[in-house]
Amino acid sequence: MLIALDAMGGDHAPAPIVMGAVQAAQELKDLHITLVGDRAQIEPLIPSELRGTQLDIFHCTQVIGMDESPVEGLRKKPDNSISRCWQLLAEKKVEAVVSAGNTGAMVAGGMRLRKYLKGIRRPGIGTIMPTAKGPCMIIDVGANVSPKPSHLLQYGAMGMIYAKYILKRENPTIGLINVGEEQGKGHDLAKDTQNLFKASPLKESFVGNIEGRDIHRGACDVIVTDGFVGNVILKLCEGVFEFIMKLVSKEVVATLPNDKMAAMQALQAMTMKYDYSTFGGAPLLGIDGTCIICHGSSKERAIKNALSVAATQSKVSLNQHIVELLDSLPAPASEEE
Amino acid sequence: MLIALDAMGGDHAPAPIVMGAVQAAQELKDLHITLVGDRAQIEPLIPSELRGTQLDIFHCTQVIGMDESPVEGLRKKPDNSISRCWQLLAEKKVEAVVSAGNTGAMVAGGMRLRKYLKGIRRPGIGTIMPTAKGPCMIIDVGANVSPKPSHLLQYGAMGMIYAKYILKRENPTIGLINVGEEQGKGHDLAKDTQNLFKASPLKESFVGNIEGRDIHRGACDVIVTDGFVGNVILKLCEGVFEFIMKLVSKEVVATLPNDKMAAMQALQAMTMKYDYSTFGGAPLLGIDGTCIICHGSSKERAIKNALSVAATQSKVSLNQHIVELLDSLPAPASEEE
Repeated sequence: MLIALDAMGGDHAPAPIVMGAVQAAQELKDLHITLVGDRAQIEPLIPSELRGTQLDIFHCTQVIGMDESPVEGLRKKPDNSISRCWQLLAEKKVEAVVSAGNTGAMVAGGMRLRKYLKGIRRPGIGTIMPTAKGPCMIIDVGANVSPKPSHLLQYGAMGMIYAKYILKRENPTIGLINVGEEQGKGHDLAKDTQNLFKASPLKESFVGNIEGRDIHRGACDVIVTDGFVGNVILKLCEGVFEFIMKLVSKEVVATLPNDKMAAMQALQAMTMKYDYSTFGGAPLLGIDGTCIICHGSSKERAIKNALSVAATQSKVSLNQHIVELLDSLPAPASEEE
Repeated sequence: MLIALDAMGGDHAPAPIVMGAVQAAQELKDLHITLVGDRAQIEPLIPSELRGTQLDIFHCTQVIGMDESPVEGLRKKPDNSISRCWQLLAEKKVEAVVSAGNTGAMVAGGMRLRKYLKGIRRPGIGTIMPTAKGPCMIIDVGANVSPKPSHLLQYGAMGMIYAKYILKRENPTIGLINVGEEQGKGHDLAKDTQNLFKASPLKESFVGNIEGRDIHRGACDVIVTDGFVGNVILKLCEGVFEFIMKLVSKEVVATLPNDKMAAMQALQAMTMKYDYSTFGGAPLLGIDGTCIICHGSSKERAIKNALSVAATQSKVSLNQHIVELLDSLPAPASEEE
């Protein structure tokens, strides 16, 4: 399994990124990782026994900053690490790309290649969210802020395959984010998408509308929404989590007479377990290849997890299953692009 | 101050609704509340000293269920408590209406009257959210799922007045929910709305785009978004809060050797303090009159708070300030309705 890893992308790059690659290589012996970035910074971080065997370097000289405009970054910095990762994928030198760098540049870089999976109209970013009934996938969280109903139908299909083969759900269910559960609720996109699901071969898996409060109750395995709403959901969860954990720390833990230390440790363990930023990254689904986008704050563990998920996606032939399912969906009717 | 209270609306009506009215009447001696609903159920709940003085009853025979279709409910049940509340407002027999009943029916009932404030194109529901820097207002959370940029500009103006006169912020700031902070981000609605704010007299108060994670950090006093996204945000916050509090209870509190009871009590106190469902209701702004929509699960405290907020809105002449500010905004350009 060959993966290109953007060694320069992320708030803490390159050290924890390279460390994550080292840990992944030590755990998964069939992994070969190409670290894309500045050789002078990367080389000293690689243990000698992995150098040239499981880990090698693709040198490049530029980095798109985390807050840089993706479009400008891609244009003004042709030798940036994200573009080089995508280039390696396009040339079939790797099967997967992983980056904790500028998300917009990562998505735009992939879109530019136009190497979509057969039948895919628009790729979407899926992300894993913890719920009371285990992890679920929410798709799209930002690749496509103005989708058509047919795009959302495909997101449901891709999410279902992901839930089945990666999250190991036997019969994954799909829900559509809306402002109420009853049919006929919401704006045109929500109404039209609901009708499309109900008329499609996915109708057996489709549970209908779900509301914001249902997500964490574990209402379904795949939550479909447009990239605008999905992105707000993703970042809001981060913000609420951060806010409540601080409150608990201040208004509960700090007030305890005896168990302050124990409570603090339990709270930290819980934060580690559920912190949205430590998950193994979000797959950009619909690309011909595997692409994992990690949170900018990713450290060793998150990068190692992302590399491992990338390997798993390839092992279970995720893309092949997606193409097969898409083949069974009706061709979208006349819809403006 | 005359208020019509939907005594039949809410998951627990009528007892806690009437109890909330009793408490409010005892605290605020200038309040006169008309309880709208089934006299036989309501009358026994009113203490004799308040009967006919601060509290009276407007009898009606029907209730729109919490999960009933708003449109059907309003049509098939002409003598429902929500329509009767609005009727009292339209006839100027009260200055304010308060309900914890079917939100859709409450909004649709108000919209039907078409008694908007001068200059208002579409009313919006504002709701108060706790943040690290104190409460902020998010508007709209569900009255208008497909707004135009000019509606969002007016939501910003109304929210600003609310933040100034109710939340007591000296120079309230306004932010627009988007998928990134940089200009040019997001879908057409977000881009056009941002341009509109920047070209308006509100530009000094406008801080630009804010992301989901910024809300609870207290990025601004007024958060503007469309009713679809706002509704998802509101309900998602509820869901995440519920989810995390259960986790803390199980993975932190339950593991403590000595302080289980103290921790449980502190956690309950925190829940009471921040629970989204116990706030004093959400104002429907832009109506000629005062309208407060309470959470369906509202009990005494929430109803009492809502009545008190309704009285305050009237006392500070909130609507008059809104009309004055709107007068200073440019008339919207040719925009399809």
